[in-house]
Amino acid sequence: MIVPGYTKYCPYAEGELGLPLILLTNDDGIFAPGINAIRAEMEKLAGVEVWAVAPDRERSASGHAITMYRPLFPLKADIPGATAPCYSVTGTPADAAKLAIDELLPRRPDLVISGINRGPNLGTDLFYSGTVAAAREGPILGIPAIAASLDSWTSLDYGVAARFTAQLALKVLKEGIPAGTMLNVNVPGLPDAEIQGVRITTMGRRLYRDQWDKRQDPRGRTYYWLAGELMELDNDPDSDVSAVEAGYISVTPVQLDLTRKDQLERLDGWNLKL
Amino acid sequence: MIVPGYTKYCPYAEGELGLPLILLTNDDGIFAPGINAIRAEMEKLAGVEVWAVAPDRERSASGHAITMYRPLFPLKADIPGATAPCYSVTGTPADAAKLAIDELLPRRPDLVISGINRGPNLGTDLFYSGTVAAAREGPILGIPAIAASLDSWTSLDYGVAARFTAQLALKVLKEGIPAGTMLNVNVPGLPDAEIQGVRITTMGRRLYRDQWDKRQDPRGRTYYWLAGELMELDNDPDSDVSAVEAGYISVTPVQLDLTRKDQLERLDGWNLKL
Repeated sequence: MIVPGYTKYCPYAEGELGLPLILLTNDDGIFAPGINAIRAEMEKLAGVEVWAVAPDRERSASGHAITMYRPLFPLKADIPGATAPCYSVTGTPADAAKLAIDELLPRRPDLVISGINRGPNLGTDLFYSGTVAAAREGPILGIPAIAASLDSWTSLDYGVAARFTAQLALKVLKEGIPAGTMLNVNVPGLPDAEIQGVRITTMGRRLYRDQWDKRQDPRGRTYYWLAGELMELDNDPDSDVSAVEAGYISVTPVQLDLTRKDQLERLDGWNLKL
Repeated sequence: MIVPGYTKYCPYAEGELGLPLILLTNDDGIFAPGINAIRAEMEKLAGVEVWAVAPDRERSASGHAITMYRPLFPLKADIPGATAPCYSVTGTPADAAKLAIDELLPRRPDLVISGINRGPNLGTDLFYSGTVAAAREGPILGIPAIAASLDSWTSLDYGVAARFTAQLALKVLKEGIPAGTMLNVNVPGLPDAEIQGVRITTMGRRLYRDQWDKRQDPRGRTYYWLAGELMELDNDPDSDVSAVEAGYISVTPVQLDLTRKDQLERLDGWNLKL
């Protein structure tokens, strides 16, 4: 059985399938300013229907965790000024996106937007990010998706990121992206005028040094707490990391297929046997 | 700065770098039979040093979650018959692997083996699996890795899977795999004699139908519980899913790079602007 949309381009074409439905989600929680910035921006657009379904609290670094051993409660969230229906879910970002798509939304959404994330999701961050995982539920279920992040922890003006993401969303709805694909967007934490432009990028690398604080608890037991400072790596100039460092918005096409194809023949040559 | 091993082949070559150190980890917990089967198998090999560091309890479907907002306690685990040092960690599978590599092991390991997982990790499972995420900490930190899973929930004889994985581990130590790569192994839940052989495979697709049980709690509130039955999808005959279905052990080379390269030029043509 072919899952609709999974092996083809996104089926949405302007006007053809009626009002497109857009799911907003994130990992910072339904009350975070980033999701509300993109929600407000999407609500301004004529001709799209918007729902927001996100975790009930911050769930950063959740990766693609899902909840199997306890139930999830969706709850209507009262967001000041919102016209879109907003719900919190008592689970991970991927739980919220999956439950929204499968059960809460009135029909199958045409696009998933996850973000705007507080802090960047560049390079290796893509594995740890709950925001990226929530977006990834889109292509897993045959729906195009965008993950969007702001490269700042302090100057948190989501305006530029929200406007760019809304514009990109319309482009994706119109042009489509291939099945099994999402776009990962990172916006520099700069005022509009200082942003250099937009670059289509590859996924770079990020690593952290001195990762752990080693301490003693009040009973003398040793514990570790994840810390770490970003390392300067030699990143490709085409990478997301380099683009954002240089003041550009990065847009990386990200795929579900993890196969390292150039190793298939080499491994075949190992003649592995039981 | 180039992280050692990250952009090159695995630096281990027989005899050259002394006794190879192997980290065993998983997502079923340090006391699970799967990790103890591979530990016992690795302990039989002359010329390798083995440590096991894994979560203190089952943490299936953890994805690549890591713990940022609370400390982690490592604790020596007393495993009957084990000669390798064994530790539990009060965190996710990725936490356990990362803490082991960075802090607990006497030196940088030469190989990470995660498993043997109870149940398969095929196709789309790779995003949800804590076992695969723990293995992925290997290539993220510049170390080759193997994730190994048994495609059974009932007939849990890990013998074949442990023997095959141990043999593959020696091959990886000797031949190397490229930086940014790991191998994902799935072994059919069959007696030795019924296993058809080994196939080098691509990552397939797995989806679940009727995913959610909708219920009422004792106070009348609606909740959802993740359920779902595996769907039959048209999987490529070269995929991991097809190989295991046909009774073969699958070995898939898996990469860190998620860039969908064939879309870079197309997206450039969109001329995105702020």
